[in-house]
Amino acid sequence: MYQRIGFLYKDYIYKKITVVFDDTFYLNLAIEQAILGVKNKQGGPFGAVIIRNDKIIAQSNNMVLVNKDPTAHAEIVAIRAACNVLGHHQLTDCIIYASCEPCPMCMGAIYWARPAKLFYACTRFEASEAGFDDSFIYDEIALKPEYRALISGQLNIDGATAPFEYWAKWGDKNLY
Amino acid sequence: MYQRIGFLYKDYIYKKITVVFDDTFYLNLAIEQAILGVKNKQGGPFGAVIIRNDKIIAQSNNMVLVNKDPTAHAEIVAIRAACNVLGHHQLTDCIIYASCEPCPMCMGAIYWARPAKLFYACTRFEASEAGFDDSFIYDEIALKPEYRALISGQLNIDGATAPFEYWAKWGDKNLY
Repeated sequence: MYQRIGFLYKDYIYKKITVVFDDTFYLNLAIEQAILGVKNKQGGPFGAVIIRNDKIIAQSNNMVLVNKDPTAHAEIVAIRAACNVLGHHQLTDCIIYASCEPCPMCMGAIYWARPAKLFYACTRFEASEAGFDDSFIYDEIALKPEYRALISGQLNIDGATAPFEYWAKWGDKNLY
Repeated sequence: MYQRIGFLYKDYIYKKITVVFDDTFYLNLAIEQAILGVKNKQGGPFGAVIIRNDKIIAQSNNMVLVNKDPTAHAEIVAIRAACNVLGHHQLTDCIIYASCEPCPMCMGAIYWARPAKLFYACTRFEASEAGFDDSFIYDEIALKPEYRALISGQLNIDGATAPFEYWAKWGDKNLY
């Protein structure tokens, strides 16, 4: 079993400690990052690390409170940072490590970003026990709109699909 | 039926045209915004408008291509902008209008933002017909990880729930 021997990634670099940089290593980093975010009162207890070719290209903890942004989950912040590093909106060949099973928002973001793999340490059920809505949102999203707790639904209006007609004519379909 | 009589919200203000600012009006604005985004080659054909107390506080089209950010869907960009306006990570009393049924990422973001209501014009199935993965991602997220197209899963490591223990001790639980 991998031993947690430091706090930040740079410790491993500066101290030249020999460790195996395997999935467990990166998951532990994501966990450390989650703890760091709580200590700094930046947001909820979640962390994420994104690697490409065995190098970390982004890592973040949850930044919801400090950024006043409900979308600033660790995975979302890390995905945006990684895309910034790569200069592209897709994370081809990347691996995402998250301290906890991503919520539906983050899972959706991960599918859109199209990384190669995703690994996480604890589950949505453990997040629920800690007081977070992850499991509730999974349940809600699986329901038909009329059965959801959120008041929501489709309103029929003329021209609802007009944007798709413009897209078929003018969209950068190869790029999306 | 509401007639589409202009292109941008300011037209309605500057020209002092009398219109009923109902759900249909805001949905049409979201559709216009979606078309604008395609014309400007900023991203996919999607738009969103957020109102509070009958005033628009944010609106956006999909910005994925121009921002090189897979999370820059219209709803996410608008939610972040609205939170910036309100100075808070929750959109209490707000109504979100989207040109199309939000994808799981955006639905998740909407649940975390906790608006009062959500309305949309066309559905995930129409988005799929236009070539977008919304419906696919809904199907994927409903599956157990081992059955998903994305290689993903939980890895058991020691201390996986340590961040939640820190959160219980030190977290800003009332704020989240």
